Amino acid sequence: MKTNRRWVMARKPQGDITLEDFRLEEVPLQLLQPGQVLVRNRRLSIDPANRAWMKAETYQQQLRPGDPLPAFALGEVVESASHLLQPGDIVDGRLGWQDAAVADARELRRRPREVPLDTLISLLGNSGLTAYHGLVDVGRLRPGETVVVSAAAGSVGSIAAQIAKIAGCRVVGIAGGRDKCAWLTETLRIDAAVDYKSPQFAAEIRDALPRGADLFFDNTGGDIFDALFGLMATDGRMVCCGSVAQYAAPDPAATARRIGTLVVGKRIQVSGFLLSDMPPRLRERAEAILLDWHQQGRLAVALHLVDGLEQAPQALLDLLAGANRGKTAVRLDSSPDQNET
Amino acid sequence: MKTNRRWVMARKPQGDITLEDFRLEEVPLQLLQPGQVLVRNRRLSIDPANRAWMKAETYQQQLRPGDPLPAFALGEVVESASHLLQPGDIVDGRLGWQDAAVADARELRRRPREVPLDTLISLLGNSGLTAYHGLVDVGRLRPGETVVVSAAAGSVGSIAAQIAKIAGCRVVGIAGGRDKCAWLTETLRIDAAVDYKSPQFAAEIRDALPRGADLFFDNTGGDIFDALFGLMATDGRMVCCGSVAQYAAPDPAATARRIGTLVVGKRIQVSGFLLSDMPPRLRERAEAILLDWHQQGRLAVALHLVDGLEQAPQALLDLLAGANRGKTAVRLDSSPDQNET
Repeated sequence: MKTNRRWVMARKPQGDITLEDFRLEEVPLQLLQPGQVLVRNRRLSIDPANRAWMKAETYQQQLRPGDPLPAFALGEVVESASHLLQPGDIVDGRLGWQDAAVADARELRRRPREVPLDTLISLLGNSGLTAYHGLVDVGRLRPGETVVVSAAAGSVGSIAAQIAKIAGCRVVGIAGGRDKCAWLTETLRIDAAVDYKSPQFAAEIRDALPRGADLFFDNTGGDIFDALFGLMATDGRMVCCGSVAQYAAPDPAATARRIGTLVVGKRIQVSGFLLSDMPPRLRERAEAILLDWHQQGRLAVALHLVDGLEQAPQALLDLLAGANRGKTAVRLDSSPDQNET
Repeated sequence: MKTNRRWVMARKPQGDITLEDFRLEEVPLQLLQPGQVLVRNRRLSIDPANRAWMKAETYQQQLRPGDPLPAFALGEVVESASHLLQPGDIVDGRLGWQDAAVADARELRRRPREVPLDTLISLLGNSGLTAYHGLVDVGRLRPGETVVVSAAAGSVGSIAAQIAKIAGCRVVGIAGGRDKCAWLTETLRIDAAVDYKSPQFAAEIRDALPRGADLFFDNTGGDIFDALFGLMATDGRMVCCGSVAQYAAPDPAATARRIGTLVVGKRIQVSGFLLSDMPPRLRERAEAILLDWHQQGRLAVALHLVDGLEQAPQALLDLLAGANRGKTAVRLDSSPDQNET
């Protein structure tokens, strides 16, 4: 491996992102400095956040034209100039949309070899952990409550909805289209699903919540957030798990005007949340719990795998268009779904 | 009803309480003052706390010889001098171990007529609510954690253990004797039960907790509390639900000496808890949740009913001797288990 293929942002997106906003380039591989490792990427995480980073200042600096696409990914160490990692180690971190990455070993996390890569990129990647911590630690999920999950057929939402079921809650999912709604109730067996594309959405979500929502786990923001705001029960919690910024901003006054009445009157808590805030010891415990449930067959993981680095931008566009269920990832090898191979 | 039979404390108990510490007396019924109601008691709650109130200063004043036995009970209003309650209303409150009570209507709580009395005195009485709030609000129960419940075959513990199962936790119960342990695992289907009377208790409870205990819901205190103290996981929570005081005090230094090391090192929280601290709106929601689970067949209620006011002291002695499972209550009528009758 002497050269590396990587995606860069070709230009600042105008409105919706398009394939023209990306450019695949081939560059020489850097030499390793002491403390660095060379990682061959094996699974690239495709997330709505990718778009946010391209379009605006968020919790991290906005990309400039020519910048490589940052992204969470999973890879294998192939060369090491660090005592922390060995060739053959599986690691994750901000490895980017590229074939290989040269990275500081201290910024990577070694992952268990006995867990399949497809599980590590989804359930034990940002999706599963965002779902668990967002519901449990930020949302203070309580058994028996009514939990609403938006983007419930997505990577985070599909796991959040299942965790809430395992925790003894009544779970209402919001998703786009009848197929996704049927998948939620029939395959994931959550209690009810409401199609936000339905012209009767406002009435349908209200009817699905006769006691209101105790916890709203929001992946979308915008109009859905506004609709739920009026449907929260007393002591309700709204957890915004970091994707609000990627959506077209609604009229900013629409929600803001109502906050004074609703938040105080119902003692609602609206909490922002980034997975990176969670202390490592809580993450480790959550990972053990999620893996147990998955191995016991209580928690299903839906994964949409796309083959080949060159497909990464299209995979992101498809994700943003709502084409798929569960976690989207790009596979950079044709290896089967076993870490050990 | 011109006279009233009631139990009073005959003398301050010396050591363990005995039947000689109680006296049944017959007194004239007071006339109703404005705002008061006459309540015919129908279910008396029998609780370890009854002993505590007789023996020592607790969160309420210690009883003196001649004082009527205070107790939580459920009854029916038969006469009212208050606009708040009507004859026929079912109420609960501190109605005492007696056939009838004259009470201020504002200190009673009207209960739903459509719920059976036996459910109101157990699941929706102090036992079920102490279990729910102790686990969820004080203990911050998180799905997937390991939860240990002491006195797990008792009124509070048997419900706490089942709630933790519903909430997706691994549940280990502690109870006295093989029969109770078998009942916990076979009938209530909790994950493991450990007999505290076993000579190998210390090893058995350790073996049942390979990852330690995340949440210990304690009904006993003393040696069991001490044993669990050393088995808590990082970030563990110990919830003491108010019955510690009734047990023979262990060497006070034994636990205290270790607190400095353990509480800090493992960031454990030890929380005292009285049900009366919970705001009414949280109680109301918890009641709806508990009743839903019970009606769905997910939460069983074990009830040990004893007939006749004259049996109250013996019922308390039997409870303290660990003779029964689930909730103990005294029935003051021979009505069937339907509130409506």
